[in-house]
Amino acid sequence: MRLATRDDATRDGTLVVVSGDAARCLDADMTMQAALDDWTQAEAVLRALAARLNAGQGEPLDRAGLLAPLPRAWQWLDGSAFPTHGELMQQAFRLPPIETDKPLMYQGMSHCFLSAIQDVPLPSEGDGIDFEGEFAIVTGDVPMGCRADDALDHIRLVLLLNDWSLRAIAPVEMKTGFGWVQAKPACSVAPFAVTPDELGPAWQNGRVCLPLTVEINGTWFGSPVGDDMAYGFHDLIAHAARTRDLPAGTIIGSGTVSNANHAEVGSTCLSERRAIDTIAGRPVTPFLRFGDRVTMQAGDTFGRIDQRVVKR
Amino acid sequence: MRLATRDDATRDGTLVVVSGDAARCLDADMTMQAALDDWTQAEAVLRALAARLNAGQGEPLDRAGLLAPLPRAWQWLDGSAFPTHGELMQQAFRLPPIETDKPLMYQGMSHCFLSAIQDVPLPSEGDGIDFEGEFAIVTGDVPMGCRADDALDHIRLVLLLNDWSLRAIAPVEMKTGFGWVQAKPACSVAPFAVTPDELGPAWQNGRVCLPLTVEINGTWFGSPVGDDMAYGFHDLIAHAARTRDLPAGTIIGSGTVSNANHAEVGSTCLSERRAIDTIAGRPVTPFLRFGDRVTMQAGDTFGRIDQRVVKR
Repeated sequence: MRLATRDDATRDGTLVVVSGDAARCLDADMTMQAALDDWTQAEAVLRALAARLNAGQGEPLDRAGLLAPLPRAWQWLDGSAFPTHGELMQQAFRLPPIETDKPLMYQGMSHCFLSAIQDVPLPSEGDGIDFEGEFAIVTGDVPMGCRADDALDHIRLVLLLNDWSLRAIAPVEMKTGFGWVQAKPACSVAPFAVTPDELGPAWQNGRVCLPLTVEINGTWFGSPVGDDMAYGFHDLIAHAARTRDLPAGTIIGSGTVSNANHAEVGSTCLSERRAIDTIAGRPVTPFLRFGDRVTMQAGDTFGRIDQRVVKR
Repeated sequence: MRLATRDDATRDGTLVVVSGDAARCLDADMTMQAALDDWTQAEAVLRALAARLNAGQGEPLDRAGLLAPLPRAWQWLDGSAFPTHGELMQQAFRLPPIETDKPLMYQGMSHCFLSAIQDVPLPSEGDGIDFEGEFAIVTGDVPMGCRADDALDHIRLVLLLNDWSLRAIAPVEMKTGFGWVQAKPACSVAPFAVTPDELGPAWQNGRVCLPLTVEINGTWFGSPVGDDMAYGFHDLIAHAARTRDLPAGTIIGSGTVSNANHAEVGSTCLSERRAIDTIAGRPVTPFLRFGDRVTMQAGDTFGRIDQRVVKR
């Protein structure tokens, strides 16, 4: 099942169910958050709408009128589960390895997720404007102490998102140990949130086994696959829920998608490409300038992120 | 003006205005978040209710039926603005000084703030259960790039809170650079949120000039004053808003209240006391056990936090 949120001039929009060909939709008369808060009830309603769409009913889908699937969320926890990404950063910038036997995770801003097509307003090119292509999941209510084995059952939806990052600020904040505030402005999210079953064989062991393709200004930049996570999303949920209940609508990210064969498949963030440039001894790829366009997609599953960075 | 949130069996409760003697209240027929979202309108309504309370009207206030003033918030950003606290931790645990010329700040969980009297459910005494006494402010909408000079005008409310912390986990997470997830479960908040004018001369230069008194199991533990912040709350707002808009209802914390004359005034967290014990070469004060009771107050301004830690 494929869901989206239609802009109805309210803050949280209206949940719509989207047809397989993404051409039609039906209003669900609730918000995405309301559906997640009472998923058992809501899912039955949504599946009935999906059946009507499969039978050819529905209104034309206006993609330009879609918000992020969850325009704001009560919690956004971002992992960094692709080991290749960390290894490249450490090698290039001569950083000590991060000492931990647990998943890496920080809490990020969740009160605003940008839509897939709106301009990305940032204050300064001097901040080192970068993107990070990630897969993410949306949970139902997860009780404190949930084990990884039980956590897969709490995954309601899967997302594709761009975790915008400001690289001139990130290492300074990271050195304090406090994580990132200024270095992590609002993320952008692809228009369609899908239930795990919608992914079919591309959903395995709590991982999204699809290539995430990034282009900058229309030029291919990378398409690594999402299955190289050292921890699956169920492990990330269990980590997050160790000392807290997770509310329905918690979004948990994979971190930058990255593969060991990056020479062939490329990267999903500039910072990793710059690390590879540095290791190879070639001039480093520049960060983004205002006006630059970044697109991300994983086949047709989540729809397409296609945005320009602009001066705020 | 003194505000609170009454438990009405909904998730966000009902905003009430509270009399000066905290004996009476009047319902405002809105949530705290709704008031913050449209403060200009709401403030007029709330001030009119406050005038009726001053004239002797109102219902008896049931303190046992109060939630946290904001039972959940879209954003919680916690600073660490008291230099003495950081210096003691570094000296005792031989940590390198944190290299930054900016305020320290992390993003914490904001989807649940515990009331002042509910039990605090935590999974294990082995996690090093600790409290942190803090003052905090609640903002209106703050635009990205807001300067510190303009930020005082965006402060709507002042809070007293207990930032529960798990010290066996905190340094491990801090070393990753990603900040804290497991080490920072839900905070507890004193029952009354007050407008800055309510503090009178105790609100100066974006700081709360009141002693924050902590007791453990009825024994005095500390009462340092809130004015020793290296950065005022207006500075913390400007820091937070450097690359993001802050939504109305953003809560920003001072970090553990701490004074240079800690030998006389004590501390507001066990970890700092343990640092002082270590420096003095005496046995370190233990962390909390299940059943221990922690109280916090700053005179009568914010009411009293009085809670037990319990096994989840």
